Amino acid sequence: MTRGFAVAEYRARVRRAQTEMSRVELGALLLTTEPEIRYFTGFLTRFWESPSRPWFLILPASGDPVAVIPSIGAALMGTTWISDIRTWAAPDPDDDGVSLLADTLREIGGPVGVPDGPESHVRMPLGDFERVRHASGLDWRGDEGIVAALRAVKSEAEIAKIAQACAIAGRAFDRVPEIAAPGVPLSRVFRDFQRLLLEERADWVPYLAGGAGPDGYADVISPASDAPLAEGDVLMLDTGAVWDGYFCDYDRNFAIARSSPAQRDAQARLIEATLAGEEAARAGARACDLWQAMADIVGGGEGAGRLGHGLGMQLTEGLSLTAKDQTVLQPGMVITLEPGVNLAPNRIMVHEENIVITDAAPRRLSRFATPDLPVI
Amino acid sequence: MTRGFAVAEYRARVRRAQTEMSRVELGALLLTTEPEIRYFTGFLTRFWESPSRPWFLILPASGDPVAVIPSIGAALMGTTWISDIRTWAAPDPDDDGVSLLADTLREIGGPVGVPDGPESHVRMPLGDFERVRHASGLDWRGDEGIVAALRAVKSEAEIAKIAQACAIAGRAFDRVPEIAAPGVPLSRVFRDFQRLLLEERADWVPYLAGGAGPDGYADVISPASDAPLAEGDVLMLDTGAVWDGYFCDYDRNFAIARSSPAQRDAQARLIEATLAGEEAARAGARACDLWQAMADIVGGGEGAGRLGHGLGMQLTEGLSLTAKDQTVLQPGMVITLEPGVNLAPNRIMVHEENIVITDAAPRRLSRFATPDLPVI
Repeated sequence: MTRGFAVAEYRARVRRAQTEMSRVELGALLLTTEPEIRYFTGFLTRFWESPSRPWFLILPASGDPVAVIPSIGAALMGTTWISDIRTWAAPDPDDDGVSLLADTLREIGGPVGVPDGPESHVRMPLGDFERVRHASGLDWRGDEGIVAALRAVKSEAEIAKIAQACAIAGRAFDRVPEIAAPGVPLSRVFRDFQRLLLEERADWVPYLAGGAGPDGYADVISPASDAPLAEGDVLMLDTGAVWDGYFCDYDRNFAIARSSPAQRDAQARLIEATLAGEEAARAGARACDLWQAMADIVGGGEGAGRLGHGLGMQLTEGLSLTAKDQTVLQPGMVITLEPGVNLAPNRIMVHEENIVITDAAPRRLSRFATPDLPVI
Repeated sequence: MTRGFAVAEYRARVRRAQTEMSRVELGALLLTTEPEIRYFTGFLTRFWESPSRPWFLILPASGDPVAVIPSIGAALMGTTWISDIRTWAAPDPDDDGVSLLADTLREIGGPVGVPDGPESHVRMPLGDFERVRHASGLDWRGDEGIVAALRAVKSEAEIAKIAQACAIAGRAFDRVPEIAAPGVPLSRVFRDFQRLLLEERADWVPYLAGGAGPDGYADVISPASDAPLAEGDVLMLDTGAVWDGYFCDYDRNFAIARSSPAQRDAQARLIEATLAGEEAARAGARACDLWQAMADIVGGGEGAGRLGHGLGMQLTEGLSLTAKDQTVLQPGMVITLEPGVNLAPNRIMVHEENIVITDAAPRRLSRFATPDLPVI
């Protein structure tokens, strides 16, 4: 499968953003985070792990984007379709891109929109952000969700990358019997599962969570302990593996040596809820409708929380399958279905699959699990 | 080696912060990012990969920190030493923690300090940040670098974790001959090197960069291409592997099948510069002094850029070894020495080691490479 995207796709993304910018009368969009900048440029690097340098991309009301970036990124940005690349020698304790960014914004003109809605943040020091705002002499406002709305609907090329990540994880999940057995510490299972994902051709593994216990697990965000797996445990592994910058995000449950009736019932109910979510996942339905379809099966109380979410360039992005989220599904949205059930006080089992919304029934991106809890 | 830290260490960190808060007359410190919150609580999870939920920690002028977090994190935060944990059902499109955070801040009292200096950002939507500021009715300002200054000087327990990460990477580097050979695509070498790091007991591998070519590589931040290694290439792998939440950050160069005189000269000069940096790395010296010591050997022109940096809970954090950084070294600071040389126009070789500043000569955390470029 080809890496990257055709330049025409980046140009189309910029055009769509500019149409919306015109509607809300923005002169420029200022982007500062990894997925926002990559979405419009294709600039893909793990160097964002370093917080030392800010990176900026400006979308003008018309014309091509302008990158204002540390000189260390000039070579890589030069391999993308972006041609207007302005650099400074970062980190500079006296002026870390502030003057260059303010000058560039003044040249392009305002008002300047900055993503300010759910899931967004401004990735630069607050002090410098205020200095740029002041030095630009322009009006500043939010982006009215323009960037998030664009990113929420994936192209076929984006969906293919997510499907690739899902296939990689599927092959790794098939190999869990190689690494999990009674007596093996959970921390070792976590390390080995990341190794399996890499062997199955993940580029890297930004996210792995999980848990184990006879009545499920306490949460789905804790790091692995060194406690060994025991016969009768249910083991859950939940991964966000990446291929060419796109995530999968789904999990699998396994019974260790033997399964209990409560575990088997939970698995069956989780699959039933997942299928109900899939059935409700039609263009025009709301996020809360999918939540309701699943909550009707797993119980819609406080604990039901978020039963799925969008995904793509980030592990979670866009809509949330909650009682309150009224977002309307559109073809091209990639989402997870992620119901959970309680097996005991503070002990849960969760299940997760990935689908893409179409004009008809959703397309499965992960190979759905069956109601039978696998025993290994 | 033990995971986590003694509660006494967290209490000491909070006390030191409160001493500084008193000096600059802050009533509360508001923290929003992963390393800031983990530093004071021990809250360790890869769930930060999800941007959907903001997380908050408030340090009052006296007394213990207060966590204001999504309910999904309550179980894990409950395992730390933090006892005042206030939660909301995030993500909530109507009020995503804004009221709860503003109420808690009002109860604690201001002025509220927020990290706003180099490398910092505010990890929450800008719109909600402004709503919280307004709703709190308190004065808001920067933290005057309090948190960054505390984090820059590591405890013995922190240094031990970084040393562990360095040892893991050292064993993986020793095994590079298993995975690199003429004809192997660089992308496969990257995947396999991450696998080696996991086999050598890294918890995970947030960062891997590198490059290959007969005259070095174009930069140190690009992802791997599928181009195969060729005889006469020099291969560089640079990793930030993590053990218990702490990074190593160093690299190794390898000649593939045979080395050229230019490559061997470059390696020798890089090691010479590294040793000069180590020699200059004394408490009381400034970051720019170390830069100068290395630049005198590799050339101090524009391209010399940053020749090292602090590290710890992040791949890069704290001071920069640049011509402009006047930060004074203190015992307990962990830094990288990272000189680079040009082999051809736009082609470089870089070398990196990790050390900790002490009252005397620095202590090596990575096993230093020799001037002889290894051939594999």
